[in-house]
Amino acid sequence: MDKKAKVNASILIIGNEILSGRTQDTNTSSLAAWLNSIGVNVKEVRVIPDVEKTIVETVNILRSTYDYVFTTGGIGPTHDDITAESVSKAFGIKYEIHKEAYKILESYYKPGEFNEGRQKMVWMPENANLILNPTSGAPGFGVENVFCLPGVPSILKSMLGGLTNSIIGGEPILSLTISLRTIESEIASSLTKVQDENKDVEIGSYPFFQAGKLGVSIVIRSEDQSKIDNCNSQILKFIKEKNIEVVDR
Amino acid sequence: MDKKAKVNASILIIGNEILSGRTQDTNTSSLAAWLNSIGVNVKEVRVIPDVEKTIVETVNILRSTYDYVFTTGGIGPTHDDITAESVSKAFGIKYEIHKEAYKILESYYKPGEFNEGRQKMVWMPENANLILNPTSGAPGFGVENVFCLPGVPSILKSMLGGLTNSIIGGEPILSLTISLRTIESEIASSLTKVQDENKDVEIGSYPFFQAGKLGVSIVIRSEDQSKIDNCNSQILKFIKEKNIEVVDR
Repeated sequence: MDKKAKVNASILIIGNEILSGRTQDTNTSSLAAWLNSIGVNVKEVRVIPDVEKTIVETVNILRSTYDYVFTTGGIGPTHDDITAESVSKAFGIKYEIHKEAYKILESYYKPGEFNEGRQKMVWMPENANLILNPTSGAPGFGVENVFCLPGVPSILKSMLGGLTNSIIGGEPILSLTISLRTIESEIASSLTKVQDENKDVEIGSYPFFQAGKLGVSIVIRSEDQSKIDNCNSQILKFIKEKNIEVVDR
Repeated sequence: MDKKAKVNASILIIGNEILSGRTQDTNTSSLAAWLNSIGVNVKEVRVIPDVEKTIVETVNILRSTYDYVFTTGGIGPTHDDITAESVSKAFGIKYEIHKEAYKILESYYKPGEFNEGRQKMVWMPENANLILNPTSGAPGFGVENVFCLPGVPSILKSMLGGLTNSIIGGEPILSLTISLRTIESEIASSLTKVQDENKDVEIGSYPFFQAGKLGVSIVIRSEDQSKIDNCNSQILKFIKEKNIEVVDR
């Protein structure tokens, strides 16, 4: 596959524990930051419960809408881990023992420890591509443009490196942040002007509190550094005129 | 409205900064925990960019699917704050100056400080119901079953109290967590049996690492305490048989 100018993706977080508020999802930001770094724009994130019908339907919507889909969660050994079976159903392919995954886990565990619960983790969609897991053995898997990763953040992060060759990104998305000692309403109209004159650049404005003081971070994003530089100088010009201090953040 | 047995909601996080991985969303867990506490089940979360068409379409899907929709982000003074206008379009109603919101902000700011940027924040869907903001003045708003809140987590949290009377929850969802010094594969088949015998109770299994040791938290959720108690004793029975230690967490 050649590099495409724009490559997009969605992230599908599968797990009741996120929807109940019990667990704070951090996989979205890890995945999104990594995807951005390899030139893949995340266009949508969904969080859904451990319900087969919902997983099947959502996977099918997302895989036909976006270049890539990354799921997290539901690939462990317990009864609520139903991602692999649901993804098999979404693709209409067999859910079966993956021979290579079986071999990996058989040799990962000590003799006698590759028990029934662990053997559940080698059941996958037929001919799935394994995503190796350097942390805890049990691999993730990919089918076509859908990549299924675990929910435990440290394990997920350790598996991203092994995925890089499977994902063809576009031009990396560059970004520049300018943090200011001001409030949004002071710069809103000037910033609107910069955005209007640079319609294909993404300019975001984000208030922050730091050490008891208010500030605003302006984030400029584009695949084209010269467009970022252009916006940057327009912004620096108006903040100089307004006598607004640039701060580190 | 009478209390309904099951009340559900979705959360819609609006903001490029979450999709780029720059900002870690924490509003989902705050909102979800609060909604659960008042008997509202969060069934889906979506994160979408600051794009009008996407916001309009997604709001319309979610508001017709779920009892309530809570949006976060995009109600500030800058050009990328387009939630209020997009929600007006989703409902097909006028986007105009909200007189009550205008009065609130006019008296909130010092004379002369209620500038153009700030005045943008009083533009809302016609006849929107205000959600008061005890932290920074600018109110959120509700239209029918859609409630629009700001993206800044501390401000959002401070506004939830004022929302409680607008939301009619069902029976509160009760939960019990049992944390164990074990690994999931040790308990998987016993736990599956408990789930199979208690199909209307939600039982989740979540591995954790704490002080360098592995553990598993089992979370039992139901509106009915006696069903939780029943699962709890079945679980305590098998962990006693397996000689698994219960730990604090």
